[in-house]
Amino acid sequence: MFITLEGIDGSGKSTQAKLLAEALRTQGHDVILTREPGGSKGAEEIRALVLEGDPDRWSPETEILLFTAARRDHLEKTIRPALANGQIVICDRFADSTRVFQGVTRGDLQDKVNRLHAEMIAIEPDLTLLFDMDPAVGLARAKGRQTAEERFEDFGAEFQEKCRAAFLDLARDNARFTVIDASRDIDAIATDALDAVTARLSKTRP
Amino acid sequence: MFITLEGIDGSGKSTQAKLLAEALRTQGHDVILTREPGGSKGAEEIRALVLEGDPDRWSPETEILLFTAARRDHLEKTIRPALANGQIVICDRFADSTRVFQGVTRGDLQDKVNRLHAEMIAIEPDLTLLFDMDPAVGLARAKGRQTAEERFEDFGAEFQEKCRAAFLDLARDNARFTVIDASRDIDAIATDALDAVTARLSKTRP
Repeated sequence: MFITLEGIDGSGKSTQAKLLAEALRTQGHDVILTREPGGSKGAEEIRALVLEGDPDRWSPETEILLFTAARRDHLEKTIRPALANGQIVICDRFADSTRVFQGVTRGDLQDKVNRLHAEMIAIEPDLTLLFDMDPAVGLARAKGRQTAEERFEDFGAEFQEKCRAAFLDLARDNARFTVIDASRDIDAIATDALDAVTARLSKTRP
Repeated sequence: MFITLEGIDGSGKSTQAKLLAEALRTQGHDVILTREPGGSKGAEEIRALVLEGDPDRWSPETEILLFTAARRDHLEKTIRPALANGQIVICDRFADSTRVFQGVTRGDLQDKVNRLHAEMIAIEPDLTLLFDMDPAVGLARAKGRQTAEERFEDFGAEFQEKCRAAFLDLARDNARFTVIDASRDIDAIATDALDAVTARLSKTRP
């Protein structure tokens, strides 16, 4: 089972990914926790190339290609072997992040993102948890972190507003999504996330 | 005018690229000499990622994506601005190298390479000079160089034979190609290369 966690910066995805992995392991599941961009040796090197440095360092088109290259490596080296091994894969961001961030940066790129995905990646998650919240809160959280990877945070609040709307659009159009209100306390969010996964697991293994 | 130089490893492309640039400059042309993978700051960083390390480090699919990302950056930052500026662009390798090397590595990838090119690059050279020669000679020359970028040379002689045939196939199918016998001495090759460019220039500016 392939689960992805999506949402704007500061939505608490990464914390929730860890809590979800722990909860599932406690239930006896074999879980692998990974993230994008990155998640394999090669993909992490591409991640460093994309996320560090000047926000205008790469055009949106080049960025899509680099993200797709990293995703392909991640898929081959980490995700597919784990799924073949019967593990539950929890991935912090996946293709929906590319659809949203690049699609919002330049609307005409969303089709390019989708065609590249169909050509080079093809796989979709079994379940996508969207951690939805007011970007003002998310941005304040993200700014609080010390990190060199601030390219996306640097795009500002209006950008994050558009991203939130784009994520919600994807959720409306794709049955694999479960939207979780991420403005609440950590435990309430974690409970909803685990419930969504448990429901999906019981569908596949009745 | 956009001129690309193609051929197997050790075919003398890089030497000929320099001689051609010098000869055209002597004639008063404004010339920029560039190369792939690389040719812009970002693309050179991607080049290092692709060409160094273990030959099996990246799958052919990931490699295609990385080459296309580097090409997109090179196109945006170096080639298009130079062409817009009225310069002659001489590029040591371009998309045909990806078509040949990846297409030969795995035949079913040639269509993927072409679709990615159509989607993300689109431009084709005005003139492509193919430096054709026996791979046994080319390989001996390439091995003589000291370089960390030995991934492709490592694939061996049979691989280079297939690449030569694939380059010749492209040349037969695309009118923009001029095939030059690269087994001769440097001056004879340089004369043929300059003649081909002069002929093409006189077509565009009668």
